[in-house]
Amino acid sequence: MKKELLYEGKAKKVFAAEDPELLIVSYKDDATAFNGQKKGTIRGKGIINNQMSNMLMKMLQQAGIPTHFVEELSERETLVKRVDIVPVEVIVRNIAAGSFSKRYGVDEGFRFDTPTIEFSYKNDSLGDPLMDEYHVQALKLATKEEIETIKKYAFAVNERLKTFWQQCGITLVDFKLEFGRLADGNIVLADEISPDTCRLWDSCTGKKLDKDRFRQDLGNVEEAYQEIMKRLTEHM
Amino acid sequence: MKKELLYEGKAKKVFAAEDPELLIVSYKDDATAFNGQKKGTIRGKGIINNQMSNMLMKMLQQAGIPTHFVEELSERETLVKRVDIVPVEVIVRNIAAGSFSKRYGVDEGFRFDTPTIEFSYKNDSLGDPLMDEYHVQALKLATKEEIETIKKYAFAVNERLKTFWQQCGITLVDFKLEFGRLADGNIVLADEISPDTCRLWDSCTGKKLDKDRFRQDLGNVEEAYQEIMKRLTEHM
Repeated sequence: MKKELLYEGKAKKVFAAEDPELLIVSYKDDATAFNGQKKGTIRGKGIINNQMSNMLMKMLQQAGIPTHFVEELSERETLVKRVDIVPVEVIVRNIAAGSFSKRYGVDEGFRFDTPTIEFSYKNDSLGDPLMDEYHVQALKLATKEEIETIKKYAFAVNERLKTFWQQCGITLVDFKLEFGRLADGNIVLADEISPDTCRLWDSCTGKKLDKDRFRQDLGNVEEAYQEIMKRLTEHM
Repeated sequence: MKKELLYEGKAKKVFAAEDPELLIVSYKDDATAFNGQKKGTIRGKGIINNQMSNMLMKMLQQAGIPTHFVEELSERETLVKRVDIVPVEVIVRNIAAGSFSKRYGVDEGFRFDTPTIEFSYKNDSLGDPLMDEYHVQALKLATKEEIETIKKYAFAVNERLKTFWQQCGITLVDFKLEFGRLADGNIVLADEISPDTCRLWDSCTGKKLDKDRFRQDLGNVEEAYQEIMKRLTEHM
């Protein structure tokens, strides 16, 4: 079913499918951090991220948020709708951590009254710089209407996932989303939702169960991914 | 009339006044750039910036934008309302230049379809980091309502100043504003509006007539400030 390799990213490969409106995504175990400066492997990550992302995408779809998900093909491979990716990373935060804490001198763990949203320009050579929605528009990366749709979906994803992870004893700290345009111009959620793209803390112990274990050399990286997957499957 | 020195900034001193609800601002010739890394003097700048800022504040006041301006006291000194400064720099841009061009890899001179607005956290030790309005709210630097008011005023300032400078043969590229809260909580425009805080290009030749001449060692810095002041007084 897989045809030519169209693109190889840091954590996934993307192949053409028989149907020109579809793509096949294949998840790798490769992990990178700090804009590619740190490289490594997290054994089994590709399988977990593929299956977890698909389960969460289905959940979001049921909550009325359109996604690119079509069908899981195998442990590591999924059929998705072909989209034109909006070259903007969308980050939603409930609690200060990572680049936010560093940038604004705010202790990790500071809880916001209401969630924040921020955009960064998907551009490795510029270091994925932060931008606001006026910049997105000025650089013609998305229209004003598309930005409104993306914000609406991103906050809705946060509400749905926050509630779900809470049931699993997990605190959703922050996460990164990417959106794309279908052939008809409609915006859908694309990319993945996994411990690579979310900060997930154990609600009781505060233990980090996400890619920060890799970024910060905290050890037990594989176990953290497995633990998250276990909690997710128990509560689906 | 001047009482104790309350604060000395990079380009101004602020003194207490007889009336506790007022302050006296005194403009210096000192110039700094790149977060204080570059230092120098622009002879006569304090006089020009004081007088220019007062003329423009009066113009904005007439256009319905409340400001801190009360009365010009002397060449370098002005009586203003005492405000609690919102610790956020508000930058409005019509054309790409400076940090915007560098951050997003966009040629200086690229004209936006609609103006952009951005915020940066007034915090020298953090390097005045860029933020969006959700961050301003999350860090409790301003309320949602205050942010809306600030955005409304900032865009209104842009429209009024763009039109005025156009009549003077000057293109308003971008500018930085600061806002403050009066004792009653109302938001007013504060700080200054001058070639220190605006990018102003000759509409015909494109010549820079602002602090970029100092930042970029372009020479004729004093003459540029004088030229801007001359055009302004001719068109008031």
